[in-house]
Amino acid sequence: MFKAIVSADTLGAALDSVSVLVDECKINLNDDGLAIRAVDPANVGMVDLTLDESAFESYETDGGVIGVNLARLEEFVGMADAGQLVQLELDEETRKLHIQIEGLEGTLALIDPESIRKEPDIPDLDLPATIVVEGKDIDRAVKAADMVSDHIALGVDETEETFYVEAEGDTDDVHLTLGRDELIDLVAGEARSLFSLDYLKDMNKAIPKDAEVEIELGQEFPVKMHFDIAEAQGQVTYMLAPRIQSD
Amino acid sequence: MFKAIVSADTLGAALDSVSVLVDECKINLNDDGLAIRAVDPANVGMVDLTLDESAFESYETDGGVIGVNLARLEEFVGMADAGQLVQLELDEETRKLHIQIEGLEGTLALIDPESIRKEPDIPDLDLPATIVVEGKDIDRAVKAADMVSDHIALGVDETEETFYVEAEGDTDDVHLTLGRDELIDLVAGEARSLFSLDYLKDMNKAIPKDAEVEIELGQEFPVKMHFDIAEAQGQVTYMLAPRIQSD
Amino acid sequence: MFKAIVSADTLGAALDSVSVLVDECKINLNDDGLAIRAVDPANVGMVDLTLDESAFESYETDGGVIGVNLARLEEFVGMADAGQLVQLELDEETRKLHIQIEGLEGTLALIDPESIRKEPDIPDLDLPATIVVEGKDIDRAVKAADMVSDHIALGVDETEETFYVEAEGDTDDVHLTLGRDELIDLVAGEARSLFSLDYLKDMNKAIPKDAEVEIELGQEFPVKMHFDIAEAQGQVTYMLAPRIQSD
Repeated sequence: MFKAIVSADTLGAALDSVSVLVDECKINLNDDGLAIRAVDPANVGMVDLTLDESAFESYETDGGVIGVNLARLEEFVGMADAGQLVQLELDEETRKLHIQIEGLEGTLALIDPESIRKEPDIPDLDLPATIVVEGKDIDRAVKAADMVSDHIALGVDETEETFYVEAEGDTDDVHLTLGRDELIDLVAGEARSLFSLDYLKDMNKAIPKDAEVEIELGQEFPVKMHFDIAEAQGQVTYMLAPRIQSD
Repeated sequence: MFKAIVSADTLGAALDSVSVLVDECKINLNDDGLAIRAVDPANVGMVDLTLDESAFESYETDGGVIGVNLARLEEFVGMADAGQLVQLELDEETRKLHIQIEGLEGTLALIDPESIRKEPDIPDLDLPATIVVEGKDIDRAVKAADMVSDHIALGVDETEETFYVEAEGDTDDVHLTLGRDELIDLVAGEARSLFSLDYLKDMNKAIPKDAEVEIELGQEFPVKMHFDIAEAQGQVTYMLAPRIQSD
Repeated sequence: MFKAIVSADTLGAALDSVSVLVDECKINLNDDGLAIRAVDPANVGMVDLTLDESAFESYETDGGVIGVNLARLEEFVGMADAGQLVQLELDEETRKLHIQIEGLEGTLALIDPESIRKEPDIPDLDLPATIVVEGKDIDRAVKAADMVSDHIALGVDETEETFYVEAEGDTDDVHLTLGRDELIDLVAGEARSLFSLDYLKDMNKAIPKDAEVEIELGQEFPVKMHFDIAEAQGQVTYMLAPRIQSD
């Protein structure tokens, strides 16, 4: 059993954070809210999303897992105007999801969860550096890197106490350096890793420009990025595997 | 002889309502205004437009018919800023239309009316149900249906006194129900017909979101939609033939 | 040696006026500012740009010439928000241009100036007619002509004291006439020449809508168009060769 009412904005933001990585996913219907974990087909980018029960106007479930086509579900949710409520109800018999937005009623066929890629275990990593920045700074770094290269290095200068972003192309390069006073917080540590820009561009799309993003970074290690959505009643973690350092 | 001055907005709205269905049309130059009737090449969608003499700043004609390429004429009219006046004058000898917008003067070659598809007779139908809705509700219904299907059913529930829209895709479906209090008016009657969504999407483009649209509907019969343009000095009627009910 | 600070808006407008004609250009680093002259590969359109020292926040050079890929440089400059400053510094050894915008630092490989098309000599022409119009009138004329033709005639009617624009297509034509009171200034003279619309459309993109544009015109002669950018601290001249009069 699953029956919930939630604002279209909140549900949309939650789904967007997952759909930048995968087309289909399992949604875990937990007592305390929805949870989605997914990894892209190449096993490079992972997302861990929770949307707390408190983010909903009403929320009832006795648990379970449903499989959804994210683009289809987002299209239905997109029929709502900003601020309108979306009512979701699982029909156990037909395995379809009923969606209501004002006078509009839709039925969305679910996907057999067994047919969807296994949910990843997102590893606990003890990463030496932590940087907290605004979403708009990640946006700026990604856009700048994209001018010259298809990969991007993130690192911390322990001496200068700065967070830096570097991208080197065949002929041109860009560097972005953010000092303590431009960062929300910094725990310096030995950290520099190279990443595929394509993944970071996709993740960037789902990061609100005004979000506080906590970046955990290591030396040729995956990066983790944590941020809140839905007025802190939803949490997103992205993990991105490093590329082998080219030289 | 034909000589008229009209605001670019009014003329543009009138032409748009026709050009969503056909590329070329005959314009009847009547004493009391312009009139256009046209049917699309597949004989599925028809339009009947009148633009009253009162919609013009000045209007003179001794009658006749001209053939126009709608896209070309719309392009000329589109050169005007909102609120500017367009002056039209027929050159009988060259069979060209002179168009003036402030200092700008253009000449548009006309098309031999004989070469244009015959104007349809739009049949008088005695349809059992009449629904009056706002243009924005038609827009919403069309967009919702378009998510799941390429056809759309319009109907009236006589018991509930509601107007409904249904679209069924292979796996998903949507339903929109509007009750008496969400409708401007409703004359209930036995009515449910299936239509091609492509045509309704085209017609929807020309329906102002804030227009009152009168829908006449029957049981597996064509639908008629009436609405005003140009501050009620122009009238548009669309008629759309039903599709055979699929099952 | 070259080191300068300039607002992104000013530098962007200057580069745009050149990039509508060519992909690469030489930038002359003069004592009194930057200067660019370029001609398109077909030798039909030329641009002469100067950006005065006074347009910069700071400007230092001991002269020289650098070759740039305009699209790449514009992309870097485009990373700045409106009103932000761009710092440029030439690295003589590596022949690269360092670009700084707030915390962002980039390096742009320069192009060997020898490999770039020779700078044109823009001829002194004694053209009989001079017309001064607003940029928005050029925009209107170009858009109107584009509806019917791929060439455009510019001319002056000495008797009527008007500036006119004509475009004739296979079936349709447009004429725009601007009298003394719609022009900022007019020195009448025998002048009518035909031009390729493609070039004029490109040049039009770089002409601010509110600029005063001085047009020098002759009888089957090139046209020259002069206008200011960067609050009159930059000057652009376009010269466009005429097409042979058709028919």
